[in-house]
Amino acid sequence: METLEAIHTRRSIRKYEDRPVPEELLQKVLAAGMTAPSARNTQPWHFIVIDDPKVLAEVSSINPHAAMAEHAPVSVLVCGDLKLEHPSGYWVVDCAAAVENMLLAAHGLGLGAVWTGVYPRQQRMDGWRRLAGLPDHVVAHSLVVLGYPAVEGSRQDRYRADRVHRNGWRG
Amino acid sequence: METLEAIHTRRSIRKYEDRPVPEELLQKVLAAGMTAPSARNTQPWHFIVIDDPKVLAEVSSINPHAAMAEHAPVSVLVCGDLKLEHPSGYWVVDCAAAVENMLLAAHGLGLGAVWTGVYPRQQRMDGWRRLAGLPDHVVAHSLVVLGYPAVEGSRQDRYRADRVHRNGWRG
Repeated sequence: METLEAIHTRRSIRKYEDRPVPEELLQKVLAAGMTAPSARNTQPWHFIVIDDPKVLAEVSSINPHAAMAEHAPVSVLVCGDLKLEHPSGYWVVDCAAAVENMLLAAHGLGLGAVWTGVYPRQQRMDGWRRLAGLPDHVVAHSLVVLGYPAVEGSRQDRYRADRVHRNGWRG
Repeated sequence: METLEAIHTRRSIRKYEDRPVPEELLQKVLAAGMTAPSARNTQPWHFIVIDDPKVLAEVSSINPHAAMAEHAPVSVLVCGDLKLEHPSGYWVVDCAAAVENMLLAAHGLGLGAVWTGVYPRQQRMDGWRRLAGLPDHVVAHSLVVLGYPAVEGSRQDRYRADRVHRNGWRG
C-alpha cells in the first residue's frame, strides 16, 4: 500500500476476525516500530508481545477502553527504557514514533490496530508494571491491539487550514 | 512508495537541494501530520510553516543541532495546544505521531526531512515561544526541516530480538 494512502486510510480498528496474526507479520510490525527515528538513535524501547489469553483478560482492569484486547489475537505493549533514553527525556516522543510506525505497517500489511494510551496516566502505568512485571527503569507507554480487521475503515483527511500558520503564530 | 519500504528507507536528511518545496507537496505533508491518530481524536496541534530566511537564520540560536534549517527551503514547527488536548496530557504523544506521519509522507513524496527535538527541553521551548510569538497555551514540540534531499539514504532495519518479550518482562 502506498505511504500516503496508508496514512489516510489507517483507522482505529477495534473488532477483529477470529484468527491469529502470523508470526511473520507480527515481526514486520515490530521491525517497523524499531525502525522509527529516536533522539540520537538511542532506540529506547521494548516491545512486550501479549498473546496469552490470561494476560489479555486482565487488560480491561487496567484500562476499560482497551477491553477489545481480550477479543484480539495479540497486543503489543510498547515500553520506554529510562536507562537507554536520551538524557533530555525524549523517550516519550521516541516511543510514540515507534507506535505510529507500527500502526501504519499493520495497516499496510492488511492488519487492523488500535493505539490505546498508557503514558502519562500513572494508574495505567502502575497496572502494567504489575501485570507485565516491568523493572523500575522500564515504563509502559502504549498498548497496540492487533488483529485482522472485522470492520472496514474509510478514508480520512483531517487537514485544517486554521491550524497552519506562516513564520509565526497567526503570521 | 510502499509503506513498509518508506518506513525502512526513511532517513534523517540534513542536506537539501537549492530549490523550494512546492506548496502542493508541503500541504500533503501537513495533511499527513493532521491525519495522525490522537487521544480521543482531539487533534491538539498547530503547524507553523517557516520559510522566511530571517526566521530560519535564528533557528541555530535555539538549537545548534537544527542549524541545517538555515540552508533548507522550509521548516515546520509542530506545536501542541494545551486548550485542545485530552485532559490526561497526551499532547506530547499525539504531536509525535503527527511528526512521524510527516516524515514518512515527505519521504514518500521524494522529499527529505529531519526531526529536530524541542520538547521537553525548556530552553528550546522558550526560544521558540519568543521567536514564533506563541501564546501561553501553545507549546513548541518539534521542528521538522524539509527540502529535496541532496544526499541518499540507505535501507535500515533496526529489528532487535533482545527488545522483544512474550507476555511479560523477559517472558
